Amino acid sequence: MIGSLLNEKKADIDKELANLLADNGSELYKSMNYSLLAGGKRLRPALFLMLLEIFGLEARSYMKVACAIECIHTYSLIHDDLPAMDNDDYRRGKLTNHKIFGPGMATMAGDGLLTYAFELISNQENISPDTRCYLISILAKAAGPDGMVGGQALDIISEGHSSSLPELRKMDSLKTGCLICAPIDMAALIAKCDEEMQKSLHEFAVHLGLLFQITDDLLDVHGSLKEMGKLPGQDEKSLKSTYVTILGEGKAQELANAENRRAKAAISKLGSSFERLNDLADYVLARAN
Amino acid sequence: MIGSLLNEKKADIDKELANLLADNGSELYKSMNYSLLAGGKRLRPALFLMLLEIFGLEARSYMKVACAIECIHTYSLIHDDLPAMDNDDYRRGKLTNHKIFGPGMATMAGDGLLTYAFELISNQENISPDTRCYLISILAKAAGPDGMVGGQALDIISEGHSSSLPELRKMDSLKTGCLICAPIDMAALIAKCDEEMQKSLHEFAVHLGLLFQITDDLLDVHGSLKEMGKLPGQDEKSLKSTYVTILGEGKAQELANAENRRAKAAISKLGSSFERLNDLADYVLARAN
Repeated sequence: MIGSLLNEKKADIDKELANLLADNGSELYKSMNYSLLAGGKRLRPALFLMLLEIFGLEARSYMKVACAIECIHTYSLIHDDLPAMDNDDYRRGKLTNHKIFGPGMATMAGDGLLTYAFELISNQENISPDTRCYLISILAKAAGPDGMVGGQALDIISEGHSSSLPELRKMDSLKTGCLICAPIDMAALIAKCDEEMQKSLHEFAVHLGLLFQITDDLLDVHGSLKEMGKLPGQDEKSLKSTYVTILGEGKAQELANAENRRAKAAISKLGSSFERLNDLADYVLARAN
Repeated sequence: MIGSLLNEKKADIDKELANLLADNGSELYKSMNYSLLAGGKRLRPALFLMLLEIFGLEARSYMKVACAIECIHTYSLIHDDLPAMDNDDYRRGKLTNHKIFGPGMATMAGDGLLTYAFELISNQENISPDTRCYLISILAKAAGPDGMVGGQALDIISEGHSSSLPELRKMDSLKTGCLICAPIDMAALIAKCDEEMQKSLHEFAVHLGLLFQITDDLLDVHGSLKEMGKLPGQDEKSLKSTYVTILGEGKAQELANAENRRAKAAISKLGSSFERLNDLADYVLARAN
């Protein structure tokens, strides 16, 4: 059920993304489109669209904002994979951007997608200018130095020595969590939902983000290139601390179970229309099993 | 006269930038501040502030937007200097960001500054949300894949083989020109000036941008590390086509003179309050002599 709903959203988003950057024949556009159209779960924009629908809004009116969220996620993957960063060869089942276009062009492709994301939102005339500014602010804060980029920077610093559980949690909440919270906060803003509901949804997103990262670490141990789209065993190879290396597999799985429960508890009072978010939390948990 | 005006603006901007990213002790903030506070001419935000004053507006009310412009310029220098790009060792008279913080952290510092620029503008409550959205759109377009990043990508592709004059002109108009036009377009938008005046100012900016790039190329031949803040002779070393390598010094200087004249001609009918823009065009020309 949730699986088919996510697939439906993914299809909508993929279609919109395919028409986003009309190929102008340049190497830069090829490079941006290569990564943007390489597939991927589209979890972040799907979350945004799903929540809009729960609020009774027409999700298709906000596709450009959904694409902006995915542009930022894709840019972060391109830069994260660079030789100067994680130096990864595979992503979304294909060679990484810099493996095809070189690290200079890959850096520019990331910069281009990041910049374009804000242009996209700034021009959305069916959204009031006031709301557009808030959306840009939420997304920039989540993606910027006090959010995702801040988490990536902690990741660079942690390289080569082991992290404690609180250090790992802080890094992941910035690096992964912020860009899972942002789509939910953005949808709540558009729907003008009250502060209490907004807080509950944000708390759900925080736990979902952690759950997502823990299951990512578990998959890195057992997954395959085909399942994950990237090579498994990279965390061990790069001596990175993960929930699995710090806690062991058993306890990491227990923590995943706990985060799944906490996510669902956060929205337990919001009523039956939010049930598909419970399904989503179960779906993310299941991918680790 | 124009020199002291630019110095005054530079001092205002430097002061504002120093308080922009309150040091939170993280390596990322250190890295961002290292490049942001390394000096530099602050030409782009100064242009923006000067033009606001010509329009009779209180420039200090728009300092955050000026800072956003400089954040984007600084990010572009950090990424441009990376080993994967130009691999430069000096910038603004200091070691480049990656020489101090490593290429991974320098990549993140650039990403952080770029993202933060849009957050800054989105939150400027003394500017109407409608205008904020336009400002973000202008700046993102100028800095993005059809602007500065597009020019950088052409620069990467042109490496190792010589370019024609039209190719060089296209690359420079994107790489340098767009982020010199943007501050002028942004100030014109804030001042709500009529379309004809906006066009004249934009044309001035296009020629000023070209002039700036030609003088940069001339300085690369004769300048010193102390004057330029970066090592001279880099263009020759990297076999890059420049106005000097394509035209020779004499003709490059003639072209600089012509662009100076064209810049001034574009605004000749705008009245005496715009005279300091003439002075600015002369100032930029003089730096090459």
